[in-house]
Amino acid sequence: MAKVVTNTERTPAEICEGLGELGVATVHEAQGRTGLLAPRLRPIYEGAKIGGNALTCEVAPGDNWMIHVALEQARPGDILVVSPTSPCEDGYFGDLLAASAKARGIRGLVIDAGVRDVATLRSMAFPVWSKAISAQGTVKETLGNVQVPIVCAGAHIRPGDVIIADDDGVCIVPRVTAAKVLEAGRKREAMEEEKRALYAAGKLSLDVNDMRERLQRKGLVYE
Amino acid sequence: MAKVVTNTERTPAEICEGLGELGVATVHEAQGRTGLLAPRLRPIYEGAKIGGNALTCEVAPGDNWMIHVALEQARPGDILVVSPTSPCEDGYFGDLLAASAKARGIRGLVIDAGVRDVATLRSMAFPVWSKAISAQGTVKETLGNVQVPIVCAGAHIRPGDVIIADDDGVCIVPRVTAAKVLEAGRKREAMEEEKRALYAAGKLSLDVNDMRERLQRKGLVYE
Amino acid sequence: MAKVVTNTERTPAEICEGLGELGVATVHEAQGRTGLLAPRLRPIYEGAKIGGNALTCEVAPGDNWMIHVALEQARPGDILVVSPTSPCEDGYFGDLLAASAKARGIRGLVIDAGVRDVATLRSMAFPVWSKAISAQGTVKETLGNVQVPIVCAGAHIRPGDVIIADDDGVCIVPRVTAAKVLEAGRKREAMEEEKRALYAAGKLSLDVNDMRERLQRKGLVYE
Amino acid sequence: MAKVVTNTERTPAEICEGLGELGVATVHEAQGRTGLLAPRLRPIYEGAKIGGNALTCEVAPGDNWMIHVALEQARPGDILVVSPTSPCEDGYFGDLLAASAKARGIRGLVIDAGVRDVATLRSMAFPVWSKAISAQGTVKETLGNVQVPIVCAGAHIRPGDVIIADDDGVCIVPRVTAAKVLEAGRKREAMEEEKRALYAAGKLSLDVNDMRERLQRKGLVYE
Amino acid sequence: MAKVVTNTERTPAEICEGLGELGVATVHEAQGRTGLLAPRLRPIYEGAKIGGNALTCEVAPGDNWMIHVALEQARPGDILVVSPTSPCEDGYFGDLLAASAKARGIRGLVIDAGVRDVATLRSMAFPVWSKAISAQGTVKETLGNVQVPIVCAGAHIRPGDVIIADDDGVCIVPRVTAAKVLEAGRKREAMEEEKRALYAAGKLSLDVNDMRERLQRKGLVYE
Amino acid sequence: MAKVVTNTERTPAEICEGLGELGVATVHEAQGRTGLLAPRLRPIYEGAKIGGNALTCEVAPGDNWMIHVALEQARPGDILVVSPTSPCEDGYFGDLLAASAKARGIRGLVIDAGVRDVATLRSMAFPVWSKAISAQGTVKETLGNVQVPIVCAGAHIRPGDVIIADDDGVCIVPRVTAAKVLEAGRKREAMEEEKRALYAAGKLSLDVNDMRERLQRKGLVYE
Repeated sequence: MAKVVTNTERTPAEICEGLGELGVATVHEAQGRTGLLAPRLRPIYEGAKIGGNALTCEVAPGDNWMIHVALEQARPGDILVVSPTSPCEDGYFGDLLAASAKARGIRGLVIDAGVRDVATLRSMAFPVWSKAISAQGTVKETLGNVQVPIVCAGAHIRPGDVIIADDDGVCIVPRVTAAKVLEAGRKREAMEEEKRALYAAGKLSLDVNDMRERLQRKGLVYE
Repeated sequence: MAKVVTNTERTPAEICEGLGELGVATVHEAQGRTGLLAPRLRPIYEGAKIGGNALTCEVAPGDNWMIHVALEQARPGDILVVSPTSPCEDGYFGDLLAASAKARGIRGLVIDAGVRDVATLRSMAFPVWSKAISAQGTVKETLGNVQVPIVCAGAHIRPGDVIIADDDGVCIVPRVTAAKVLEAGRKREAMEEEKRALYAAGKLSLDVNDMRERLQRKGLVYE
Repeated sequence: MAKVVTNTERTPAEICEGLGELGVATVHEAQGRTGLLAPRLRPIYEGAKIGGNALTCEVAPGDNWMIHVALEQARPGDILVVSPTSPCEDGYFGDLLAASAKARGIRGLVIDAGVRDVATLRSMAFPVWSKAISAQGTVKETLGNVQVPIVCAGAHIRPGDVIIADDDGVCIVPRVTAAKVLEAGRKREAMEEEKRALYAAGKLSLDVNDMRERLQRKGLVYE
Repeated sequence: MAKVVTNTERTPAEICEGLGELGVATVHEAQGRTGLLAPRLRPIYEGAKIGGNALTCEVAPGDNWMIHVALEQARPGDILVVSPTSPCEDGYFGDLLAASAKARGIRGLVIDAGVRDVATLRSMAFPVWSKAISAQGTVKETLGNVQVPIVCAGAHIRPGDVIIADDDGVCIVPRVTAAKVLEAGRKREAMEEEKRALYAAGKLSLDVNDMRERLQRKGLVYE
Repeated sequence: MAKVVTNTERTPAEICEGLGELGVATVHEAQGRTGLLAPRLRPIYEGAKIGGNALTCEVAPGDNWMIHVALEQARPGDILVVSPTSPCEDGYFGDLLAASAKARGIRGLVIDAGVRDVATLRSMAFPVWSKAISAQGTVKETLGNVQVPIVCAGAHIRPGDVIIADDDGVCIVPRVTAAKVLEAGRKREAMEEEKRALYAAGKLSLDVNDMRERLQRKGLVYE
Repeated sequence: MAKVVTNTERTPAEICEGLGELGVATVHEAQGRTGLLAPRLRPIYEGAKIGGNALTCEVAPGDNWMIHVALEQARPGDILVVSPTSPCEDGYFGDLLAASAKARGIRGLVIDAGVRDVATLRSMAFPVWSKAISAQGTVKETLGNVQVPIVCAGAHIRPGDVIIADDDGVCIVPRVTAAKVLEAGRKREAMEEEKRALYAAGKLSLDVNDMRERLQRKGLVYE
């Protein structure tokens, strides 16, 4: 039943990187406020901002065996996405696996569980978004699946979907809509630039966005 | 039913700033260990330390419309305090609203919900104490109240009460007792300075505070 | 019933420091994946890495009196370990107690509760691993025990056991096995060094650790 | 600083009982979706449904002394409302206090903390809404306040406000609006009765409430 | 962007009912330990045990409008599955909607949020598995999707997949494998029946399942 | 490293049963408010009340193999106590294991993890105190320890210590003090009986326990 799907399709690098530069908040809005992973996933250091192809990996609780299997499937630019089959905070991933992941071209790790050796991971500049930091070791006994669709932190992710991650969290963009979302995100960014200038100059969003009439119609009263 | 109360009274700036300098732990003690907001509110960066007038804002879950309304009511030195009517972690506030808030003289944000664009907020040095960091977008559909008494993170807050916030969390000082609390806080600070010197010199608090007899009376045994 | 046990045995300093240098993840593995405290204990700043003798202290919820008592029992190199008798997030420990602890030679604090004055603790470089940061003050009314065996964050700790703590969390090594664990940890570290070099050079852990045959035998399928 | 306010005003019994009969969901709606206490408060047995005057009591964490003080202030028909000054799950209240509370005419207990002896409380038919069930004992060392305004489970409650509680949770109705809310609640109940009949007969709420046009205007598409 | 997909395929009733009778634990095992929804979903009363087609409904936080829309799409034997786009505990569903759902032939509700009027729902014998019980009302302002694939409580669910629910929780069986899983579940049930008899007669599972040799090989020691 | 300790000492049955009859709240008080397991352990049905010898079992996350091993060590009157080496909510124990446990004379299960088949467990009247109800299956791959000292839900438990459990939760009484605690508990029960009668007759605990003077001395003010 456990399987590794090889040679899955990827989203082109320039789309992944374009989405990564836009950042999580903008891309999440540009695709209609969808795709966000649960905010329990937090970066282990500030300032990382990446985009790449999802390399999906399903693991048993307290068992990191399949991460070793997944690394062989990596292509440069991938982001490893790990989800346990039941909630777990153990430290599935540390400096040894990070050394291997980096050597295979993996840009970062998204894991709905724990990681360890975080001081070393920070000094390696290997970014991780995780649910916990925990030194708890894991075993290598139970199979799982690599490069199959998974649910990670509440989001459905297929191999080759685009993962973007920054200080705001993690978002997934489906491969089939990624190009369109990139375009929409760039438009949104431009529009936000204009608004930001108006707000910084003291204009109120009530006026910039013509909200007053609708507020009144809904019944807002000023005393 | 939803309303905005305009022209509410403020606490004088020098009192707000004096309390802000004392910091949350000292002020909380100086007013009899009251007024602390729940510790789930954490700063998005270290080292911010502010005091200001509460500009209160009640919002619906997943809906940030009233924050736009509240910004118009801001006066320089205010601190925006936002509480949802039911628990929510969505990202109510990001860089655009921060640009507007800063332009209106708002010193920072206290929110029992989520914020986003935190990398930008950090680079703007706009301090936020929040329950979560989340890119999840919000809608503008449901009215709420601005500048009315609210409960935020377990504390009852009226417009114009003093909010102080630092790395230890957030505390509220009622407007009517603020001057007295400032005085008491300064006395406490002086007293702590003396004790700190004694402790740093190796004196035990058991002796500095004469605790030994009372410990013995309560029945403490040394083996 | 409440008692303070004086003159408990300690683990030699060179063992404590050796274990501290190895770090939590390595030591936890070296003793068979035991001894880890719950990952809810997080450091108040990054980069601290210590090893020392457990100075145990059991406190009532919202009551820090016994910490004052415990400080008298400190010897240079001790790490104060505080556990409440029921779950509590209050701020049991702040800059005054830290000044005293530092003067008594205590290397750091591990507490399954809250601390405050964290900006000052950071500037003092006094490391703390805690469950919360909270300014909530505590009383001095109820006795507890000092230097008796306690359960802290899910781990059983006796006075004089070795506590090690770093960015990965906190681990306890029993005094009676500490020397042996140190030796095992150093061997593990050397072995990991070799593997790290292989992984960084692009070798797969599947090959380095001969995992392929066992994966196949368990039934893993490649598509 | 700690005080007991005696002879506070009550809301008339018929209003309390009328609101209690309407139940939490109806009353909460009738007063504009306000007043609900956090849903972490759960009943210790099913089927209790009460309304009464809030007898407020603020306690220290792990300390139930003020509950003893509060019982003297009880009048028949009161509901005891207890809130700790910092989060606590200890068992503040058990069968002895319940025997006393019942003898004083108290209708039930709402507590943002723990209770114990729940098997006995169930057999006494003394209803409790609590955050936890815990046998953990409490001390009698620290003063608090009785019959002052408090925040309990996120709601601001004054002595003599109406508390209603049933299987859905707990709600507070301010004394000053209680009569009006009772009236509004009864109207709402009548209106719901009509709708229930239509729905039970198979009518869709889309039609009963004329929602189709507004859904279409907002852009809902049927495929 | 918001849409309602009509006339989606269903899984035949006898398969749904067969799976429902087997129950969650057996079916979850029979399909390789997959498909379980997070255990935070609990039944509002004991003893309900159902199987039916998923009628999926995605809602905004604090907004139950789309549930009204979903009811029109119901066919007898469906189970309504509701998931908010960000975490929410509000009371989305009460006795009125239950009256309508029942009239439309819906067998029960699975919701990763809150419900209310639970006393009435219990007396109606309308089963619900929810994350919370809360009287907090919701608005009707924001569109969502009906009968599209959703993630609910960590599981990916498509319209017409089979939902089974009992006192152990909730499980989803994909429509395309449902017949095969039913067969496998019945075999498993028969096999368990045999084992149960052996265990009840005092036989040890160590012997019934021949575990001793493998335990010894792994290194288990008896002292 | 993994081991099973056989033929551990037990506490005499009459002491276990005597403590079980007194119940958790009384016994916890009688031994100085110690020994309580965390209140996250809840009974799967109301009304069970047991006392027996701890049969301890340490398991890996998501792996119930050692429970099978532990059952062989059972003696009539034992209570099985299971603790995972890292937090886990999976369903470690169901109706098959319960059939075996019952046949071996085990009185109940205390587990800091999940259980399943709860409808059957209820109908068998096999009592369980657990942290979760979850159908999630577990594997049989990793060894652990049986009949060694463990920490379960925050309490340190040795084989042959007395476990008592009822609707209030779970408590451990060390074997060496069990007889003395039983005696103290019976005295306490008698004393409580007297007080209960006074309270039920309307006497205030303020008077029965002479609290008024101490309250006044601490500074309580009546307004």
